[in-house]
Amino acid sequence: MTTTATTLKGQPLDRQVLDAMLRRRLFFTPAFEIYGGVAGLFDYGPPGCSLQANIVDIWRKHFILEEDMLEIDTTVLTPHEVLKTSGHVDKFADWMCKDPKNGDILRADHFVEDVLESRLKGDKEARGEKVEEEDDPKKKKKRKTKTEAVKLDDNVVQEYEEVLAKIDNYNGTELGELIKKYDLKNPATGLQPSPPVAFNLMFQTSIGPSSNLAGYLRPETAQGQFLNFAKLLDFNMQQMPFASASIGRSYRNEISPRAGLLRVREFLMAEIEHFVDPEGGKKHHRFPEVDAIELTLLDRHTQLAGKTDVKKMTIGDAVRNKVVDNETLGYFLARIHLFLQKIGVDMSKVRFRQHMENEMAHYAADCWDAELLTSSGWIECVGCADRSAYDLSVHAKKTGAPLVVRERLDEPLIFEEWQVEIDKKKFGPQFKKDGKTVEAALEATTQEQREKLAKQLTDNGELELEVAGVGSGTVKVSKDLVKIEFRKRIENTREYTPNVIEPSFGIGRILYSLIEHVYWNRATEDGGDEARGVLSFPPTVAPTKVLIVPLSANKQFQPFINKISQKLRKIGISARVDSSSATIGKRYSRNDELGTPLGITIDFQTVQDSTITLRDRDSTKQVRADEETIVAAIQSLVTGAKEWKDVAAELPAFEGQEVDVTVR
Amino acid sequence: MTTTATTLKGQPLDRQVLDAMLRRRLFFTPAFEIYGGVAGLFDYGPPGCSLQANIVDIWRKHFILEEDMLEIDTTVLTPHEVLKTSGHVDKFADWMCKDPKNGDILRADHFVEDVLESRLKGDKEARGEKVEEEDDPKKKKKRKTKTEAVKLDDNVVQEYEEVLAKIDNYNGTELGELIKKYDLKNPATGLQPSPPVAFNLMFQTSIGPSSNLAGYLRPETAQGQFLNFAKLLDFNMQQMPFASASIGRSYRNEISPRAGLLRVREFLMAEIEHFVDPEGGKKHHRFPEVDAIELTLLDRHTQLAGKTDVKKMTIGDAVRNKVVDNETLGYFLARIHLFLQKIGVDMSKVRFRQHMENEMAHYAADCWDAELLTSSGWIECVGCADRSAYDLSVHAKKTGAPLVVRERLDEPLIFEEWQVEIDKKKFGPQFKKDGKTVEAALEATTQEQREKLAKQLTDNGELELEVAGVGSGTVKVSKDLVKIEFRKRIENTREYTPNVIEPSFGIGRILYSLIEHVYWNRATEDGGDEARGVLSFPPTVAPTKVLIVPLSANKQFQPFINKISQKLRKIGISARVDSSSATIGKRYSRNDELGTPLGITIDFQTVQDSTITLRDRDSTKQVRADEETIVAAIQSLVTGAKEWKDVAAELPAFEGQEVDVTVR
Repeated sequence: MTTTATTLKGQPLDRQVLDAMLRRRLFFTPAFEIYGGVAGLFDYGPPGCSLQANIVDIWRKHFILEEDMLEIDTTVLTPHEVLKTSGHVDKFADWMCKDPKNGDILRADHFVEDVLESRLKGDKEARGEKVEEEDDPKKKKKRKTKTEAVKLDDNVVQEYEEVLAKIDNYNGTELGELIKKYDLKNPATGLQPSPPVAFNLMFQTSIGPSSNLAGYLRPETAQGQFLNFAKLLDFNMQQMPFASASIGRSYRNEISPRAGLLRVREFLMAEIEHFVDPEGGKKHHRFPEVDAIELTLLDRHTQLAGKTDVKKMTIGDAVRNKVVDNETLGYFLARIHLFLQKIGVDMSKVRFRQHMENEMAHYAADCWDAELLTSSGWIECVGCADRSAYDLSVHAKKTGAPLVVRERLDEPLIFEEWQVEIDKKKFGPQFKKDGKTVEAALEATTQEQREKLAKQLTDNGELELEVAGVGSGTVKVSKDLVKIEFRKRIENTREYTPNVIEPSFGIGRILYSLIEHVYWNRATEDGGDEARGVLSFPPTVAPTKVLIVPLSANKQFQPFINKISQKLRKIGISARVDSSSATIGKRYSRNDELGTPLGITIDFQTVQDSTITLRDRDSTKQVRADEETIVAAIQSLVTGAKEWKDVAAELPAFEGQEVDVTVR
Repeated sequence: MTTTATTLKGQPLDRQVLDAMLRRRLFFTPAFEIYGGVAGLFDYGPPGCSLQANIVDIWRKHFILEEDMLEIDTTVLTPHEVLKTSGHVDKFADWMCKDPKNGDILRADHFVEDVLESRLKGDKEARGEKVEEEDDPKKKKKRKTKTEAVKLDDNVVQEYEEVLAKIDNYNGTELGELIKKYDLKNPATGLQPSPPVAFNLMFQTSIGPSSNLAGYLRPETAQGQFLNFAKLLDFNMQQMPFASASIGRSYRNEISPRAGLLRVREFLMAEIEHFVDPEGGKKHHRFPEVDAIELTLLDRHTQLAGKTDVKKMTIGDAVRNKVVDNETLGYFLARIHLFLQKIGVDMSKVRFRQHMENEMAHYAADCWDAELLTSSGWIECVGCADRSAYDLSVHAKKTGAPLVVRERLDEPLIFEEWQVEIDKKKFGPQFKKDGKTVEAALEATTQEQREKLAKQLTDNGELELEVAGVGSGTVKVSKDLVKIEFRKRIENTREYTPNVIEPSFGIGRILYSLIEHVYWNRATEDGGDEARGVLSFPPTVAPTKVLIVPLSANKQFQPFINKISQKLRKIGISARVDSSSATIGKRYSRNDELGTPLGITIDFQTVQDSTITLRDRDSTKQVRADEETIVAAIQSLVTGAKEWKDVAAELPAFEGQEVDVTVR
């Protein structure tokens, strides 16, 4: 199967070869494999675990430390009531169909997509066009449907293509209509599946010994941050704006997990909740720092027109032209861009895609995803949503907790206005069951009406008011029951519910996409077929920074190995020793696959003059110098202070041991 | 309520005052508090989250990096079958009683403990003895039972004390017998609760849309490590011994969580699984490095005798005297001791307690807990168990996966022995349904028997063998069905299932106990009653390293604040600015409560000559120097290269702003 996905060097990316390499090097592995595995659950082995830790560490520095965010760590177990209030119990669902014969459970949108894509492919075949696994922006998984070469009408082709471009925009009913309209059938049975029903994606459990407290595993870390808002504001000494952040696991009981790490049931998230005053246009004081950064944008309108053309635009222009709603949202889009760049993502394979109306989560007012291009298509790796005041409002309403900001006004606000004052004690007895209705009608009067009613009270000792549904529709209220006066009101504080801008990162998806972006094949030196995989992680991200290889198992090398290992450990640089009996070339190959950027060789010359060689993973070039110089070079490479070309220019090149590189 | 728990400075520790301070400073807080909270679930606020991260970071360096352990990250969701095999579905339970009237659910061992302790206290009162909340090693929670002053017989007192000393050693039946024997009643209703029944502590859920795959939230990270054993051994290039490690959440559905962070339902664990050859006495090549470290030990025999007397002993002697079973177990006990010391635990409040037989988890062969003394008694913070080959064996048996080590022998083993060779094709037809039984009887013969049987075959052309239950009990087998010959057998590899030594850390319990150990009160300077709390964390562990305070809100200070903040961030030292309008003294007080070890003041002299002051949290002394000198001093203090006394000796003292420290 050919794909248009490419490696870092532009070579065709063979997903099977890459997957085999990642498994061989234990980046990750299906969980519970000796028990047959469970779909959507993966374990990270040592290199994957370290890679994940390095990405999280850079994330923490880039976001939390840089902006003094308040990091908190909340529980995964969440009681029913919280997620009922947040809307997740009712709305956090995917649409699921069932095959009437074999009971197959299908995710409705993926099913529609699968069958239509297969028909389009069949059409191309029938027309004799070249069929590739197309670089379709919406194709997020492997196709299940077998293709038949059947030509379609041109207008049908166009219709299918438009449906696919906005596949994320359909609700369950609409997906059901598409299934009927196009007579879509489950290829396994040849039958049309049942109409889509909602399947809630949360894992349920019960808390405590008496099994009466229903709970869920959180689907996002956000709720824990919202519930602590008042305490965090207090901790921040009432200063606004501020952001909280959490790094932790979340859970989604996916209907049919697939595509490896890209759609899993248990995953690590890093989420920021930036709380901002909704008034004043959601400005951000550091926006000027990012104004000139150019992003690749795919907006809502383009997608609704059935297109996928991106625009390149500075974030400053995007905000000024209202493509992106406000500065704070724009600021974080730019910061996300910089973060992805920092960890080594190929920026030509990144775009920011705006959500369409129906696609947005139930809480969102606007949302952009950072999508990374992989062999499975464009993958949503970071979401950046404006959740407005939704969450804080619903939790405050449900619990009565004041999830608000009270701001002392520099200049008190003075209102001069007609005020209604009702004597409730007398009001009830007079109007009986209609009392509340009449009260409400009085409270609802406008300033102009009040002025007239006040005059009636002064002139006639009573007022006349139309109140639908009470008596004849007109009610008289005497002046001992109500006062209407022109008064002054002073407000010293302003109270508001903050809006929330939420950048939300799927660490596993970023990790996997990054691996594809830094992967390439080194041709063997003798021009043989066997390609050797390399993962060109930046040194900051690489699981291990330095490989130490003694030329052979000779005992003379051991003291040198110990000394250099200890030195590196002391300055916090992770190194691994490979004293296996494999050739040096083979040992370096193994570490190319692990993405280890640097290698040290200890050989007989080391024993004589204490010099060691340093090898660069990407160029395979080596330099040779004394231990101290090499350690200093390693430190400058790992911290990013220098690049290999600087080191290569400073230190003498070494051409010795590479002779055996091609030996397997 | 008086307790014998003390602060770092030996002052009586008032738990309520400490709890209020920790809540005020948002170290942690009950989760979902605005929804009324859920017992046993806590969120960490910014200082708690940072403290936790620092403890984990030191843990990772102390264990994983120091010994090249293979860190992996596995899923929390675990299918039923895995935990059925591991024994957790059947045995991971506490004993639970129910009150027949009000339905109260009681944890049986805690209930017995509560009532007996209350009776002992009542006895003391009746005898007119001074009653303190005694420093009881087994008292892990607040007492619920109201004490009545009733004198007991001396022998009853002794009996109760012996029961309490081995309370962890009783199973459900025995706890039920104690409840009947001593007529223990639920104080809330005055009724004897139901006999104890097992309550499984795992949270259950179901995985996937069809709800047919039962699963649990893992109760420990260990199983994920065992299931990956073969892959890890492969990753480690077949070298033994090696250790894997995992840091992650685990879950236990506690019957009645209490005592704050000490008994919770969701918690962070750090676990090591050290795989070792069971032959050769489980030696450890780095044992000599720890041989002389002295530990405080409370062994099994002492506890079974109803005592709690500890012994101080070097780990070397403990292993040589067989108090601790083997070197590897001993090595990790010593390493645990060093870790606790490194993070600032008060080592006079640490002991290692050996588990009694019934108390050990179902998988353990031997187990020692590192217990830390707190206001809730001695708390198990680290377990160090020898799990033998239990887990690898049961998973291998269930799945057929070879969770074994195959070791090439330097010297092949040569066996010369009598071997039985059965011609199975002829054997079945001859013996029919008894074939298997006769075969098994032949295979089960000893070397001596075989020698005789071989002679029978040679002499008589057949052998006679007693086989119970077949025919008359004696069977004849002719030489065309079986050969018995003296042959040589050579084995080149040895195959074995490794044993596992498992140090397992409850990070939350360590974190809370550490807080109590570093907590003390600073008397106010004017001798007033109001004590000011201080948390004397070592700088490496402290949530924030430096507080930056401008003397006032004067705008002249801002550039100095920005400059020093940036400098500190660049060298990776976390700092926080407090520009609130509170007095400098109050701001420092706040940060004493947060455990911030260092403070920088920016005042008018800074504006004139760019010097700043540096304050030591513990002594409240200050020094003054130029910015560069102060930053260098901070770095040496934070990395542990220097102590405050060194810095105080080098730099000029400053006595300026402390005048307002007592202003509140």
